[in-house]
Amino acid sequence: MTDGTSDAERQRRAEEELLAKVLASFDGTEDERLREVLRSLVTHLHSFIRDVRLTQREWEAAIAFLTAAGHITDDRRQEFILLSDVLGASMQTIAVNNEARGNATEATVFGPFFVEGAPRAELGGDISGGAAGEPCWVEGTVTDTDGSPVSGARIEVWEADEDGFYDVQYSDDRTAARAHLFTDERGWYGFWALTPTPYPIPHDGPVGAMLEATGRSPLRASHLHFMVSSPGLRTLVTHIFVEGDDLLEHDSVFGVKESLIKRFERQPPTAPVPGDRDLGGRTWTRTTFDIVLPPED
Amino acid sequence: MTDGTSDAERQRRAEEELLAKVLASFDGTEDERLREVLRSLVTHLHSFIRDVRLTQREWEAAIAFLTAAGHITDDRRQEFILLSDVLGASMQTIAVNNEARGNATEATVFGPFFVEGAPRAELGGDISGGAAGEPCWVEGTVTDTDGSPVSGARIEVWEADEDGFYDVQYSDDRTAARAHLFTDERGWYGFWALTPTPYPIPHDGPVGAMLEATGRSPLRASHLHFMVSSPGLRTLVTHIFVEGDDLLEHDSVFGVKESLIKRFERQPPTAPVPGDRDLGGRTWTRTTFDIVLPPED
Repeated sequence: MTDGTSDAERQRRAEEELLAKVLASFDGTEDERLREVLRSLVTHLHSFIRDVRLTQREWEAAIAFLTAAGHITDDRRQEFILLSDVLGASMQTIAVNNEARGNATEATVFGPFFVEGAPRAELGGDISGGAAGEPCWVEGTVTDTDGSPVSGARIEVWEADEDGFYDVQYSDDRTAARAHLFTDERGWYGFWALTPTPYPIPHDGPVGAMLEATGRSPLRASHLHFMVSSPGLRTLVTHIFVEGDDLLEHDSVFGVKESLIKRFERQPPTAPVPGDRDLGGRTWTRTTFDIVLPPED
Repeated sequence: MTDGTSDAERQRRAEEELLAKVLASFDGTEDERLREVLRSLVTHLHSFIRDVRLTQREWEAAIAFLTAAGHITDDRRQEFILLSDVLGASMQTIAVNNEARGNATEATVFGPFFVEGAPRAELGGDISGGAAGEPCWVEGTVTDTDGSPVSGARIEVWEADEDGFYDVQYSDDRTAARAHLFTDERGWYGFWALTPTPYPIPHDGPVGAMLEATGRSPLRASHLHFMVSSPGLRTLVTHIFVEGDDLLEHDSVFGVKESLIKRFERQPPTAPVPGDRDLGGRTWTRTTFDIVLPPED
């Protein structure tokens, strides 16, 4: 141009002016929080496009990916949640919503397999509901960050069976390997479950194709889900993981935290069985998970 | 914790370590460009979540938004392109793929209404194909950045009729208000079209709801589409806009650039009509658009 500005400088200005114009378009948003979120989203989205110099073809591939994700998503399959999971966005959202508080137990991803209204189990009872797997005795305490026991805390637990499926993934409406129970007056809980085993997230869709293209496994590290709540305390959504699991470093949704890895000790046949349960000579494991809940935010 | 690290510091570290873990998960990606794009995407996505401290409820709203966009998208409706458009992402992609080159004509969004195989028009001919609207005489030249005329340049033009619809939006398979033509040996072109009028992008889906919530209009500034190509030169996809249009500052997809705003002069009944066309006493406009193509990248 005749004003002596270099092409590179004009290009930079044009890109910045475009971003400024898009940001200004949200000035009329009544909901202040919505405005803040959209402005940040647009700023990062434009930075991404500019940083990588996104090509037209790559933009088209992104549109096609989102379209395919939309079309595979239905009442039983949620590809956008899977996408959020494998990009670590779900886990980062968990992180910012569960800020560190002293010795409070860490949170991890909720996952798509929780079900409201799971049956109640008595302390010491069996939550497996007939699901296949090695019996596992789980016990621990729930305390607040001052160390006081929390009695009557509600604990929801759920997990996959040894074939890697949750009950809701079967078509026969079974309820198995899920329950809720309450801590006793000492904050103690204990129940029989199954030793967790690994399983893949659904990977026959566009998210699976992305994992494939990036050399990543769809497998999740073995885990047992917990959701723990008590009035006045922050609700905890978390898992415990199995010490020694090869997948701890490669969990497909980045759910693993060091503090959530627990020893699951395989028991000798001669070991006394909690509650004198008859295990028919099978091997079994036991683990301990002490839970600390901070005050509500 | 007992090591004296503050909660805030532990929180910051946890968020950064998570991001680092996600980035590292792409280390095995064979395609280097894919790795680069995904790493940048993940970095910006996590920054966004951390910057706004995205709540769990907002994350759920985002998943629901994408799901609704996926479900309204079909062969005739592309909600993800609309989303990209109204966030300025389409226009920013155009910007980075059409870097400033001296006096080269600026590009703008392609839009969803181009059709391959539009009929050929002769120079001076009428591209309206019977579409309703005020006649408009459009002419100009195609030159390279050295000012040499480009003869035989292929010009595709397309636009909406005065009711705001492109031919493909009607269900009767009509072809109207679109054509291709070629510059003559002086690089000149001229054709009859319609004076552009404004129209809304489809706004009965989730993108429309977002525009509504942010107080934005779905209207596009009046425009006429061009795609201009010639071997060895960079293909130009652009529009011209109408000087004085109230929507120039509020185009819903941010397509307007100062250099693309043209005067459309309404002609007095006594003005000589190019090609001696009989306009039956109607008013008409005329505009000039000189196009400069840079060498191919």
